[in-house]
Amino acid sequence: MQRKVVRFLIGKILQVEALLLMLPFIVSVIYRESWHQMLSYGSVVLLLLAIGTLFSYKQPKHFKILAKDGVITVALGWILLSFFGALPFVFSGEIPNIFDAFFEVSSGFTTTGSSILVDLSILQHSSLFWRSFTHLIGGMGVLVFTLAILPDSGSDSVQLMRAEVPGPVFGKLVSKLSKTARILYGIYLVMAAILAFILVVLKVPLFDAILIACGTAGTGGFAVHNAGFSLYDNQVLVEWVVAVGMMLFGINFNLYYLCLLGKVREVWKDEEFRYYIGIIVVVTAMIMFALVGNGDTFMTNLRYVFFTVSSLMTTTGFGVCDFGEWPVVAQTLLVLLMFCGGSAGSTAGGLKVSRVVIFFKSALAEFKRMAHPRRVIVPKMSGKALPKDVEMKVTNYLLVYIFVFIMILFSVSCEANDFTTAFTSVAATFNNIGPGLGDVGPLANYSWYSNWNKFVLSIGMIAGRLEIFPILLLFSPVTLKSFVKSSR
Amino acid sequence: MQRKVVRFLIGKILQVEALLLMLPFIVSVIYRESWHQMLSYGSVVLLLLAIGTLFSYKQPKHFKILAKDGVITVALGWILLSFFGALPFVFSGEIPNIFDAFFEVSSGFTTTGSSILVDLSILQHSSLFWRSFTHLIGGMGVLVFTLAILPDSGSDSVQLMRAEVPGPVFGKLVSKLSKTARILYGIYLVMAAILAFILVVLKVPLFDAILIACGTAGTGGFAVHNAGFSLYDNQVLVEWVVAVGMMLFGINFNLYYLCLLGKVREVWKDEEFRYYIGIIVVVTAMIMFALVGNGDTFMTNLRYVFFTVSSLMTTTGFGVCDFGEWPVVAQTLLVLLMFCGGSAGSTAGGLKVSRVVIFFKSALAEFKRMAHPRRVIVPKMSGKALPKDVEMKVTNYLLVYIFVFIMILFSVSCEANDFTTAFTSVAATFNNIGPGLGDVGPLANYSWYSNWNKFVLSIGMIAGRLEIFPILLLFSPVTLKSFVKSSR
Repeated sequence: MQRKVVRFLIGKILQVEALLLMLPFIVSVIYRESWHQMLSYGSVVLLLLAIGTLFSYKQPKHFKILAKDGVITVALGWILLSFFGALPFVFSGEIPNIFDAFFEVSSGFTTTGSSILVDLSILQHSSLFWRSFTHLIGGMGVLVFTLAILPDSGSDSVQLMRAEVPGPVFGKLVSKLSKTARILYGIYLVMAAILAFILVVLKVPLFDAILIACGTAGTGGFAVHNAGFSLYDNQVLVEWVVAVGMMLFGINFNLYYLCLLGKVREVWKDEEFRYYIGIIVVVTAMIMFALVGNGDTFMTNLRYVFFTVSSLMTTTGFGVCDFGEWPVVAQTLLVLLMFCGGSAGSTAGGLKVSRVVIFFKSALAEFKRMAHPRRVIVPKMSGKALPKDVEMKVTNYLLVYIFVFIMILFSVSCEANDFTTAFTSVAATFNNIGPGLGDVGPLANYSWYSNWNKFVLSIGMIAGRLEIFPILLLFSPVTLKSFVKSSR
Repeated sequence: MQRKVVRFLIGKILQVEALLLMLPFIVSVIYRESWHQMLSYGSVVLLLLAIGTLFSYKQPKHFKILAKDGVITVALGWILLSFFGALPFVFSGEIPNIFDAFFEVSSGFTTTGSSILVDLSILQHSSLFWRSFTHLIGGMGVLVFTLAILPDSGSDSVQLMRAEVPGPVFGKLVSKLSKTARILYGIYLVMAAILAFILVVLKVPLFDAILIACGTAGTGGFAVHNAGFSLYDNQVLVEWVVAVGMMLFGINFNLYYLCLLGKVREVWKDEEFRYYIGIIVVVTAMIMFALVGNGDTFMTNLRYVFFTVSSLMTTTGFGVCDFGEWPVVAQTLLVLLMFCGGSAGSTAGGLKVSRVVIFFKSALAEFKRMAHPRRVIVPKMSGKALPKDVEMKVTNYLLVYIFVFIMILFSVSCEANDFTTAFTSVAATFNNIGPGLGDVGPLANYSWYSNWNKFVLSIGMIAGRLEIFPILLLFSPVTLKSFVKSSR
């Protein structure tokens, strides 16, 4: 590991966070909050500027980001972002325990949406804003944002972006990386702005509209009010808009770029996209079928089902109804959706549709090899043969996923009151969804966990968001040793 | 598919079942049961002899068992064995519904131990015997038994044995296959006999001792009495003996052969064996730790915990206590054990320890490749490099396992009253364990499922026992088409 390179990049990331924290500070000023509240944000801005500048004051002479440095920077960067982002909550006294605040902000940046807050009304506007704003930034990625606003630092920054953008393969849109980052962020922010605008048109207050748009765009799911969407005049329309919004933000953003270039036909050629839409349609239809005769009208059912499917598949976690009351077959389908997740290259979490499709094709190929031992069988994706090493990487990812899942589950099990709570706590945080079942259900929260398990679940959320390897590498003995060595 | 070869082999298998059904017939005579009961068994013996002889009267001219024929024969053979084995229950009126009887006998042959019976006392001795005896035969395999008693039909019978003996790789002990089958069955039956003898010494009635030995040796777990082990004088000792017995039958039988040859050192070199023992010791210790201070003595806790660990890891399913009352961390560990299963080449079900070890090593290798991109990293097993294609096959097996699991889960979900019941119904039958949780818990049974789901779960048990591919191949469009074609 090149300590200097990592330190320099971390410095840049902290400077960017200082910049981002200016926004809740401004919100605090606009809403004329107390001096104490303004200071809580202002002091962290200054702190981050100081540390960030200290770290990145001098660019290292032989500046070249190796794959490993990139991965470690991303992992360490996300943990530090969550830590410093948690400080204003601690300073303001809204969330006095640092483990609680770290959990809440990790949950924000990773677009999970799990909360330790029992009552949202204790938060002032600045804090409500910061909490949801982390969804917006975390959705597309802080490193991607950093790359977008910095001058192009050479092709080796691709290591940073690869580690932060989810999915089994990563392709640049254009040859220059900073331009790719700018295009992606541009599309993303414009779409979020349109969503906020539509909500304002539907008479949602501006502040709420912005926060809901942040939560939808980042597929995060932090609620704005204890009452959810029910207090808006056009509740039904708002729910439809958010449902469609979540679905759109679960699509690979590269496809939107293709649309901008006028290559709409190529979008449909993308196999992951077809499966993504197909799964949403089929699962919605199946649950609708299971709900026939439950007393609600067709349109009410359709809204509830489509919203829930869209929310869970994109791992957003907004809720409009208690699906714990639905038939078991519906619950089974929803649990499967939670693990499936959205598309690669979107803001959604989970395993990603492309991986699940590759799982299915690998399984089918293995079966065909059994049936026809002499034939050579190669699974295809989007019309092209799937390279052996990609197939291997994707199936091995599942193995790593399962083992890390089991490790977190073990820690959480030591404390949870029942297996369902333990299992869904892990499933909901590791997949970046939000609420689970039992004692962490939609009407409950994570506040009762011990500090240790709050920390474990927070790291689990970050591991899930960064697709596990960066966090594993950061905490591996080799990396820890090299930290100790170089700090001597 | 060579229809004639498959028909000939199926004929042989049915003849063997006629032979096996002679035993409950003899039990019926010994206990002087009603004519009706004797006839129920006797008639099926005659029926099987007739069909079996008709099918295998003439050996096909060009007799060569191809891989595919072997696999299809095994799959079809197991379904037919379960079907014909179910007939005596229907004829005698003890289990009048054929779907119930098919479920019960599939559960027996596959050594699952799930039951649709509410009250065991309705069964006569002959039927109680036949039910547990299927565990003994199914544990080591009906085809292996057939090979053991028939003259060596050439090296191509290896296809049959490979499809029936569980585990990722299959090695013959000696060059002649029929001799390998005889050695394995010899060790197996002698061990089962010793177990029955010890139980008789502990004053368990002979009939019960034989049945418990069958259930333990096959890692099946059908109970003999509604009251379980509690009515025996030496209950504590009996439970210890059965606990150790289950553990021993979860070990690869090839290792016992090595012991017989005096190569005891090589046994310890077998990595799967070391992990198997290690997991049992570590998990027992962890659950013991979690139970500290629950009021029971150390020895009582140790007996309960070791028995339960041994029972669930070997997928036997015998129970001596309600582990639903244990701390959640203990339940989490037990659920993981259920999926892990016993050793390859044993009578246990589940994924098998060797596969789980390979999963772990593949995951670790993938992580190391990430940390050291330039180094070539190959996982090792028992000191030898793991061939790439074995690694691929094993991870792809997991994928197929998951997809079939989901398919069965979906069918069962349409009927179950809660997700826990649905999920554990599949986990307990597909892994050949027996009881699940909720409405299929240790004190409940599977009788309330519809005929359709009883059939699905029965086929699931057979798929689990044969490690999925044979059943998938049997029900694949290609095979079904070739059946239709050749029967024209």
